[in-house]
Amino acid sequence: MSRSGSAARATRRHVRVALGERSYGIEIGRGSLGELGPVVARLLGARQALLVSVPPVAQRYGAGVTRSLRRAGLRVKRFTVPDGERSKNLTQVRRLYDAFLDAGADRSSVVVALGGGVVGDLAGFVAATLFRGIPVVQVPTSLLAMVDSSVGGKTGVNVRRGKNLVGCFHQPRLVWIDLEVLRSLPPRQFAAGMAELVKHAAIRDAVLFDRLEVQAAELRAQEPDRLLPLLARSCEIKAEVVRRDERETGLRMLLNFGHTLGHALESLKRYRGILHGEAVARGMAFAARRSEELDLAPRGTAERLQSLLERVGLATDLLPFPRSAYLAAMAVDKKRQGGRIRFVALRGIGRAETVSLLPREILPARWGRRPGRA
Amino acid sequence: MSRSGSAARATRRHVRVALGERSYGIEIGRGSLGELGPVVARLLGARQALLVSVPPVAQRYGAGVTRSLRRAGLRVKRFTVPDGERSKNLTQVRRLYDAFLDAGADRSSVVVALGGGVVGDLAGFVAATLFRGIPVVQVPTSLLAMVDSSVGGKTGVNVRRGKNLVGCFHQPRLVWIDLEVLRSLPPRQFAAGMAELVKHAAIRDAVLFDRLEVQAAELRAQEPDRLLPLLARSCEIKAEVVRRDERETGLRMLLNFGHTLGHALESLKRYRGILHGEAVARGMAFAARRSEELDLAPRGTAERLQSLLERVGLATDLLPFPRSAYLAAMAVDKKRQGGRIRFVALRGIGRAETVSLLPREILPARWGRRPGRA
Repeated sequence: MSRSGSAARATRRHVRVALGERSYGIEIGRGSLGELGPVVARLLGARQALLVSVPPVAQRYGAGVTRSLRRAGLRVKRFTVPDGERSKNLTQVRRLYDAFLDAGADRSSVVVALGGGVVGDLAGFVAATLFRGIPVVQVPTSLLAMVDSSVGGKTGVNVRRGKNLVGCFHQPRLVWIDLEVLRSLPPRQFAAGMAELVKHAAIRDAVLFDRLEVQAAELRAQEPDRLLPLLARSCEIKAEVVRRDERETGLRMLLNFGHTLGHALESLKRYRGILHGEAVARGMAFAARRSEELDLAPRGTAERLQSLLERVGLATDLLPFPRSAYLAAMAVDKKRQGGRIRFVALRGIGRAETVSLLPREILPARWGRRPGRA
Repeated sequence: MSRSGSAARATRRHVRVALGERSYGIEIGRGSLGELGPVVARLLGARQALLVSVPPVAQRYGAGVTRSLRRAGLRVKRFTVPDGERSKNLTQVRRLYDAFLDAGADRSSVVVALGGGVVGDLAGFVAATLFRGIPVVQVPTSLLAMVDSSVGGKTGVNVRRGKNLVGCFHQPRLVWIDLEVLRSLPPRQFAAGMAELVKHAAIRDAVLFDRLEVQAAELRAQEPDRLLPLLARSCEIKAEVVRRDERETGLRMLLNFGHTLGHALESLKRYRGILHGEAVARGMAFAARRSEELDLAPRGTAERLQSLLERVGLATDLLPFPRSAYLAAMAVDKKRQGGRIRFVALRGIGRAETVSLLPREILPARWGRRPGRA
């Protein structure tokens, strides 16, 4: 996996996540799904691949990936989990443990997570905890998973009280991104993924933010060539943040921008009818407005963020749940420590910081009277 | 937690597990349970303790530990899981997640595992995976947990196919051993714990082995003063092995001496009617005999080990299951890689090494005809 030469610049990019012995590459290509097998075989020396997916993704890409892995000499067993955030639960975790073991999994097996964030988080958690950890390769097929969940080693499972409250840090051994799969991604899913791309720009890179503003309309065509450099830059930002703070004790917390309200919103909607990126978009718009009110960000910051989000197809108003419901939902935020939450605020476009606030300070009383637009 | 001075030599010992930022101390004392609170408060700055135990241990020691923690300013919530290996399952894991969250757990909470290996493994796994990891303090109340499972960060949960097939590495922040609790340990449990102490001597320390041989009879009185130096040395061996190979890629595998057959035996007995240490004792005696047969250990090694095990109260014959049953049980050993098992053999008393063998090489056909004594 050498860095691609300039001749291949337009179709291939390599981003390194430098974490010592846990380092790995993010390989971004076009039409590269069929080339995965030899890389997995060479990199991991694995004998068996445990390919996890959801039915629609398995149907579209499962056979091609399986063929590629088999040609490289791996035995392949295929597994599916039901589509949707609600299947990221402990029942599916147990089902995968049993199914992997029934398939003869051992420490020389590798889990291949082919799908969006649900598959990546769930299969990643199972890989992290089976035999106290076996390798996982992330093959994200949604834009959201490409720019966010497949990189950085967070795995997560939802329990009764909330989302991702259970999980481990378990870095993948490889992230394999084929931009061609984005062509068939439903526009709503695509827009939700753009939310995390905008997030990376908003917290760390004003130049990327500018480029997104310029190209916002064209990006909605989901065209791989146009996406490649932006996605690669977004992955670089994520990789850099993870490198400097793998376990989220400081800098990495900034990636939670928009997530305090976003998670609360998802929880209030019971993960139905709202995508993660959609919730984060609303949460970011809210957080930017609060940042201005708290005199952390200059006037106009929120307006600019909100405008970009809307141009990539995302709604930015807070949904009209009672303030008490938001406060209750925030009370189980896993970033909470002794009642306070590390709330991520903008200092301007491209700069963010955490502020330790009580839920009632994050969402002051007057917001309860106007839970919609500020 | 400074090293104890010579004046206190007889009642207190400190062993450091040196793992960089994950380092911690093993504090061995007498009557020290009531002193735990201030140490947890000072060391971890925790606000809430989630105290996990089994009913008999909770009844005997729960109130005292709770009082100590409360006096140090911690809020304490108490939880019990059913006694016995069979409760180390995913249903109990889920129950603890929900119960911890219902009790208001957050990242400033600390899990205190008060009990034997089952409690330590189960509570350790929950601590490792809740909020992607919160601190755990191990307070082992069985000899087995003191010398083995509480140190080193292995956590484990059993699934349908076998024992400890699910787990994480999650180092405790402190191991707190009060030898007084051993006085009330049932003799059978005590003997099972001696198996792991003998194991440490057999694989790493011929001098300790000599001392155990000399004192074998007296040790059965379960007298703290006599145990203190031997237990401290055993903890040092474990700490040294873990320090040099935290994730069990090499040296640490030696700690699995006796465990290949031992785990198979437990699985065949469905974890009923046999204690872990009892299974390991039988497995070690078998492994020592195989080591001689394979010309790895000098003649007499197995006899010496077997004799010591029997003098501390442990049976050493292999139980009469069919060979095919043993082979099938070994097939799910999580140390298996591509059909082979890293079998731990003795090179003599105090020296061990791993040998990569097929299950049928570990247990050759003639053993099937005489599954009992060699």
